[in-house]
Amino acid sequence: MLKGCKYGTHRVIEPKGVLPQPAKKIDNNMDVLYDNEILINVQTLNIDSASFTQIEEQAGGNEEKIAEIMKGIVAERGKHQNPVTGSGGMLIGTVEKIGEALEGKTDLKIGDKIATLVSLSLTPLRIDKIKEIRKDIDQVDIEGKAILFESGIYSKIPTDMPEKLVLSALDVAGAPAQVARLVKPGDTVLIIGAGGKSGMLCCYEAKKRAGVTGKVIGLCHSQKSTERLQKLGFCDIVFSANAQSPTEVMNKVAEYTNGQMADITINNVNVPDTEMTSILSTKNTGLVYFFSMATSFTKAALGAEGVGSDVTMIIGNGYTKGHADITLQLLRESEALRNIFTELYA
Amino acid sequence: MLKGCKYGTHRVIEPKGVLPQPAKKIDNNMDVLYDNEILINVQTLNIDSASFTQIEEQAGGNEEKIAEIMKGIVAERGKHQNPVTGSGGMLIGTVEKIGEALEGKTDLKIGDKIATLVSLSLTPLRIDKIKEIRKDIDQVDIEGKAILFESGIYSKIPTDMPEKLVLSALDVAGAPAQVARLVKPGDTVLIIGAGGKSGMLCCYEAKKRAGVTGKVIGLCHSQKSTERLQKLGFCDIVFSANAQSPTEVMNKVAEYTNGQMADITINNVNVPDTEMTSILSTKNTGLVYFFSMATSFTKAALGAEGVGSDVTMIIGNGYTKGHADITLQLLRESEALRNIFTELYA
Ligand SMILES: NC(=O)c1ccc[n+]([C@@H]2O[C@H](COP(=O)([O-])OP(=O)(O)OC[C@H]3O[C@@H](n4cnc5c(N)ncnc54)[C@H](OP(=O)(O)O)[C@@H]3O)[C@@H](O)[C@H]2O)c1
Ligand SMILES: NC(=O)c1ccc[n+]([C@@H]2O[C@H](COP(=O)([O-])OP(=O)(O)OC[C@H]3O[C@@H](n4cnc5c(N)ncnc54)[C@H](OP(=O)(O)O)[C@@H]3O)[C@@H](O)[C@H]2O)c1
Repeated sequence: MLKGCKYGTHRVIEPKGVLPQPAKKIDNNMDVLYDNEILINVQTLNIDSASFTQIEEQAGGNEEKIAEIMKGIVAERGKHQNPVTGSGGMLIGTVEKIGEALEGKTDLKIGDKIATLVSLSLTPLRIDKIKEIRKDIDQVDIEGKAILFESGIYSKIPTDMPEKLVLSALDVAGAPAQVARLVKPGDTVLIIGAGGKSGMLCCYEAKKRAGVTGKVIGLCHSQKSTERLQKLGFCDIVFSANAQSPTEVMNKVAEYTNGQMADITINNVNVPDTEMTSILSTKNTGLVYFFSMATSFTKAALGAEGVGSDVTMIIGNGYTKGHADITLQLLRESEALRNIFTELYA
Repeated sequence: MLKGCKYGTHRVIEPKGVLPQPAKKIDNNMDVLYDNEILINVQTLNIDSASFTQIEEQAGGNEEKIAEIMKGIVAERGKHQNPVTGSGGMLIGTVEKIGEALEGKTDLKIGDKIATLVSLSLTPLRIDKIKEIRKDIDQVDIEGKAILFESGIYSKIPTDMPEKLVLSALDVAGAPAQVARLVKPGDTVLIIGAGGKSGMLCCYEAKKRAGVTGKVIGLCHSQKSTERLQKLGFCDIVFSANAQSPTEVMNKVAEYTNGQMADITINNVNVPDTEMTSILSTKNTGLVYFFSMATSFTKAALGAEGVGSDVTMIIGNGYTKGHADITLQLLRESEALRNIFTELYA
């Protein structure tokens, strides 16, 4: 059996020397398996929201075109990495083969159903057939195979919740886990894109951490998601605005905080150009956590400088220790959260 | 006189509603001044290193072509924002006019020589003539005018140091000021791009903070910058490597830290594709500070997830409270630093 690198560099075709995530093209030939790889029989892809939104727009909403674009991406790159957003998503599937070098090193066995917690943007993938596209929740059922590298993280699918619900929640598991780490009692927290998948999880966790002396403000876009979040009751204030209008949102947040602005802002939108909104709504000495994959590094770095804001800005690492367990626990803990996730995604 | 917005949104032509930094085009007509603007007679532009490197490459090193590209950018955007890197730089010039709404609000007077501390990527600029291009230090002398907005920060040029030295140091002032904040006694600090302008300042500050119980490791590229940094004596270890080769660098850092890796990594390079190198060289629980403008948000976010690293990643905000004073103080404090900066940039 061929010996593989822990990080999967053995599958990188171009450019040589880089890791699979930044690579332009990786090898998705599944007929030859390396000794430290896990072969997965894929059932469902959960495309990253920023990526799916872009593909859907490019396809004018047409399902056949979406399928064509998706297949095109995988044919070209050997992985489902959106060339515009750079992002991926994750998948659910069944373990089909385990490389011999992993014996005694992994708790997985053939037949286990898992969700990969590494991005599709670095996962070797072969799509044989696209079976169903669920546009409203960015999920796509396929026939195909994928590879999990030795360093790749995953989560076994729990049996007490519907699979699709688990997939949806795990896709954004990094966000609530980071909120748990960042938000302190008494904090004023602004959540941008609060009515979405990661947004709702973050609102719940933020209120839990900020407590009665804190204030959680949720910014939603559509009327639908605004009403939904209001009903959930996690936030002290819910309002609707366009996160791409920085001064408008800033003025609203100033009003809700008596001019104090947010201690912490969590950005969960799936559209570009919301960096300045996040920065201007946050205290000079505050913190912005950019979970959104549509964030531009330079717009954030130079935008903050441009308005003389000393805000700390964190890149939303998709992984946080224990993030899968933390996120699934939230769904067990809160019936309201579980119900809405079941209604929307399961 | 026309009334202006504090952040300069009144100069945004396209798209409407955004701030000057993310805007595609801003108004650089200097014949009409708004009541809260400061008109600057520009002397020298300090082009951001990532931006200048890109322009120089595109021009094949030809000075006339560099001038043409620079003028083209300003003609198209009304500001010197590199369309590829998104970044700007800063400038030195003399205050020519002060809007009447700023009376009593600013400590500037006509004739003051200042450096702007907001990025050129949001500064209305008109270039009348390009007089001299100093390719080795990314500085360009011009005839032209610029506007500083009400929220725009600046620094008066001190008289105890050469102007060009001040300009070079202030361009990267955010970096050492952040290092001062982040590095604690005993930390192992890796500086990537350590032999460059921001790199040398960061090495000095990092060693000051990490102290005798800490360890500062400097990664340089060329032999020249490696030897220069070795001679400066700020680092415990200096080595030469290509920051675009993640596993190679990771192995080196593992060797120098007995497999412990860095607590804090500061990325100061001016080339793309060094995110994974930074992540893999840092402890799982460590911190990466991306000062480099060539950083990709998605490559960092998904790259860390891809290797299961829980590292905290910070976007290098160009502004940190007191960053200009902190940085100039370093040059006063360290004769070695002042000498090398004078030799290279003054
Ligand atoms: N860092 C990571 O590792 C990681 C991992 C997974 C996902 N992500 C990113 O996290 C983000 C959120 O993902 P998700 O799955 O939670 O997405 P989602 O459920 O689709 O939610 C996105 C939200 O953004 C809101 N929104 C869209 N345009 C807006 C605007 N102009 N103003 C205000 N709000 C607007 C939407 O509001 P309406 O519902 O009202 O339209 C929606 O609630 C995406 O960018 C995704 O790429 C990051
Ligand atoms: N966040 C902000 O607000 C802000 C503000 C200003 C600047 N910046 C950014 O900060 C970065 C550094 O700026 P600077 O003015 O300090 O630049 P600089 O003086 O040109 O230094 C860049 C350094 O990167 C090194 N380098 C280039 N390619 C490399 C490679 N493949 N491997 C290892 N090292 C490599 C160079 O090494 P050699 O000298 O050996 O070739 C050089 O020392 C730039 O990306 C710039 O855009 C950010």
